[in-house]
Amino acid sequence: MTDGSYEVHPIGRVESPLTDRAAAPRQGDEGAPDAWLVFREDVREGLRDLTEGAQVIVLTWFDRASRDALVVHPRGDLARPPQGVFSTRSPDRPNPIGLHRVTILRVDGLRVLVKDLEALDGTPIVDVKPVLDQDVAER
Amino acid sequence: MTDGSYEVHPIGRVESPLTDRAAAPRQGDEGAPDAWLVFREDVREGLRDLTEGAQVIVLTWFDRASRDALVVHPRGDLARPPQGVFSTRSPDRPNPIGLHRVTILRVDGLRVLVKDLEALDGTPIVDVKPVLDQDVAER
Repeated sequence: MTDGSYEVHPIGRVESPLTDRAAAPRQGDEGAPDAWLVFREDVREGLRDLTEGAQVIVLTWFDRASRDALVVHPRGDLARPPQGVFSTRSPDRPNPIGLHRVTILRVDGLRVLVKDLEALDGTPIVDVKPVLDQDVAER
Repeated sequence: MTDGSYEVHPIGRVESPLTDRAAAPRQGDEGAPDAWLVFREDVREGLRDLTEGAQVIVLTWFDRASRDALVVHPRGDLARPPQGVFSTRSPDRPNPIGLHRVTILRVDGLRVLVKDLEALDGTPIVDVKPVLDQDVAER
């Protein structure tokens, strides 16, 4: 098994009122604010079919996370028993990729406003994908 | 806006009967086979709470994809009009991260069997996350 590594090149950044990890909600449905996705000029063509009202999955890179964590206390709550990190959504994980399902509220060129995004201001964006039926239905 | 880049370190590889991208089903619900996720020894502790029957999201790195694509024909079908890549699930995209929702069928140490995984044999695995309610419900 060869392993190697791969380079992620951010395609944009999050603009959000969230600036403090300790104060951030732990999951989007617990009151995360709306946020702007601000994309790089060089990916403009890739954005052209994003529309208001669309449900998308945004992948981010938690650039302030620890990559050494394999066992964590869920939601950072020391009263809860530690769990293997791949059974949690902790930002601290070997490849700290965030997965956020959001609704697009507005599209303004390279700026896309989305609802309820739990990601700190400045967080790099690495991908955007449409939501498919198979993402939401148990099979 | 500083951009930089980040290094993804694979945590394992897919073992699948799928070896040919042209012959692979385009999405998991179109008949993808069961596949083994084979993890690296150094992430063993992170796997410890994965259980049979659990629904998880597997993130992969499409190591045979093109990273230059911004506009693609959906499913590679030239008869369909080209679309911005962030409105498609094409493996060809600036950061070729695959997102697969699957059910765990068996856990055997570092080897985890999952149902219906559309990923070629040898594809690097970069993360595993539990499915949350907010991933599957429109908000």
